[in-house]
Amino acid sequence: MNEFPEKFRVKALAAGLRADRALEQAKLLGAEIVAVAREEDAKRLRGELPGVEVLHGEEGLLRVATAEGVQMVLSSIVGAAGLKPTYAALKAGIDVAVANKEVLVVAGEAVMKAAKSSGARILPVDSEHSAIFQAIEGKDPAQIKRIILTASGGALRGKKRHELDGVTAKEALCHPNWSMGPKITVDSATLMNKGLEVIEARWLFGMPADKISVLVHPQSVIHSMAEFIDGSIIAQLGVADMRGPIAYALSHPERVPLGSMELDFLKMGPLTFSEPDLEAFPSLGLAYDAIREGGTMPAVLSGANEIAVAAFLDSRIKFMDIPALVADAMEAHDTDKDPSVETALSADGWARRFAAGWIERRAL
Amino acid sequence: MNEFPEKFRVKALAAGLRADRALEQAKLLGAEIVAVAREEDAKRLRGELPGVEVLHGEEGLLRVATAEGVQMVLSSIVGAAGLKPTYAALKAGIDVAVANKEVLVVAGEAVMKAAKSSGARILPVDSEHSAIFQAIEGKDPAQIKRIILTASGGALRGKKRHELDGVTAKEALCHPNWSMGPKITVDSATLMNKGLEVIEARWLFGMPADKISVLVHPQSVIHSMAEFIDGSIIAQLGVADMRGPIAYALSHPERVPLGSMELDFLKMGPLTFSEPDLEAFPSLGLAYDAIREGGTMPAVLSGANEIAVAAFLDSRIKFMDIPALVADAMEAHDTDKDPSVETALSADGWARRFAAGWIERRAL
Repeated sequence: MNEFPEKFRVKALAAGLRADRALEQAKLLGAEIVAVAREEDAKRLRGELPGVEVLHGEEGLLRVATAEGVQMVLSSIVGAAGLKPTYAALKAGIDVAVANKEVLVVAGEAVMKAAKSSGARILPVDSEHSAIFQAIEGKDPAQIKRIILTASGGALRGKKRHELDGVTAKEALCHPNWSMGPKITVDSATLMNKGLEVIEARWLFGMPADKISVLVHPQSVIHSMAEFIDGSIIAQLGVADMRGPIAYALSHPERVPLGSMELDFLKMGPLTFSEPDLEAFPSLGLAYDAIREGGTMPAVLSGANEIAVAAFLDSRIKFMDIPALVADAMEAHDTDKDPSVETALSADGWARRFAAGWIERRAL
Repeated sequence: MNEFPEKFRVKALAAGLRADRALEQAKLLGAEIVAVAREEDAKRLRGELPGVEVLHGEEGLLRVATAEGVQMVLSSIVGAAGLKPTYAALKAGIDVAVANKEVLVVAGEAVMKAAKSSGARILPVDSEHSAIFQAIEGKDPAQIKRIILTASGGALRGKKRHELDGVTAKEALCHPNWSMGPKITVDSATLMNKGLEVIEARWLFGMPADKISVLVHPQSVIHSMAEFIDGSIIAQLGVADMRGPIAYALSHPERVPLGSMELDFLKMGPLTFSEPDLEAFPSLGLAYDAIREGGTMPAVLSGANEIAVAAFLDSRIKFMDIPALVADAMEAHDTDKDPSVETALSADGWARRFAAGWIERRAL
């Protein structure tokens, strides 16, 4: 943002618990509206940011997401908390650059409907979805045969089912290519991250599950691809740096020149491809099951998984308990086939409680 | 064509010396106009194709290329003979799918001007240019940083300069990925083929030489790429089968479903990349020199090279004589900076005579 002040102006920002960061960024970027999580932080910031509207809690997020004059909301709150404000922005006809996975995983159908009826655009920030977006842009959707999401394979790529029982959080956290938070890094190791991306792709690109493939590509040079009915494949390649997809979502259809983003073909090793091992990494298969089931099932997958991953990082359950827990939650869930955002969030909540009980009983 | 009778109808065809093939195809496809090279063949075919207009020579080609009601000409005559009819089609406002390299190499500037002023489109049939065309389609040309032509590296990839003197025609004709005629296969071995493609790309995509890179990619899976100002790269991938690019040129902007064109990522080996070795394969550097010089120089490069390759295939000169001859022709040529098609063809003719004399003096 700071690099291109003539292109972007930040009108409102939300910072959750990080009130000091909110203060610093609001001053730097000249934001007019600021949202933090806690009431006491909001009170303090009001004193330090004269003329700025400071709010807190869910109301603050909704205000930031739907502030008048805003052309685009960058939705990057982690977890289900990002869903309501993002949905509100789309309903208000504001374009959303979506970095938050849960928005589409938990309530993809309702979210896409809201965007469609208001005319708001949803621009992907995930590198894989940005790649597909760039690959199919300007092409006729009817010509697309399938989309191919590439997966690095995560920290445990190549390991067999029987080698995974004793995997520690430390091992699961060594991601080869991307530097990310612990939850998403564990999701990469289980391939649940790719499963969630398949669900997002299903909604973003309007493709049924059987037209979305996952291909393991450990080098993460090809960020994803689209195959057309004549066999032609369009791929997007780049360095593993989120600045690229973020900048493209914000500046689309323009592109901004970014420094040190050049992919060096002469320095890279060979590019390889293999099939995901669904026996060792059943979470990916569960995600496909959740899409096929539809309705509230993806929300259950996502909610149960989030609690399972936290318990694994806490050493309360084993690595292979993560998919086992998710599978049990899905098995126990009674799907609502046409959920509202509220219903989807309540299924997510149900799955979290189910997961907590499961862990309680199973805990190490 | 035959696979999609509802999409394509062949109105006119030209077959050069292959009169029997012309007869067979004209019957099969129901062509209304047929051109062959020789007058005696034309006479014979008139008897066998009642109601069909049969012509011969250059006049026949011009008639085929500009027949009323034709929406697209597929220009695939080998060599400079394809230039005039292609130019005539473009001047008449007829779209051209260009498979003939010389059209753009010999007279790129004049050809592009003719297309621009009549509004005719030029659609690439070469797999590399089709790849770039597909990669940049629907994108803003101002966002393109460079285009990257991939090169298999030909039959002699990896050989050093000192290993190339004794190369035989047989060795140079072993192309690893594509099955093509002998002239173009030798051009692949010298990298002149890639040089000619750089010149074509210069005109097709309006890019200066310094924005066109060549990257050796022995597996020919990535057919070429475009890099954008934000570092994002869009690549087109596919099997090495010309049916893909030909069908896309003819059906654009539609695509037709083609059988057995699916790229199998699970069966392919690693994809690798390296820099072209300009010391061992100086023809590529000569092509860049020719673009920078402009005017009639690319015509001289192309004409001299064609004669040199024929002499090499005839064992009259050595492999490394090919670039030596081309360099001498370019050195001896006095460039016309703004040639017409006629002037460009006459520079091509001059280069051929120069090459014949050079070979006469040097012949083994």
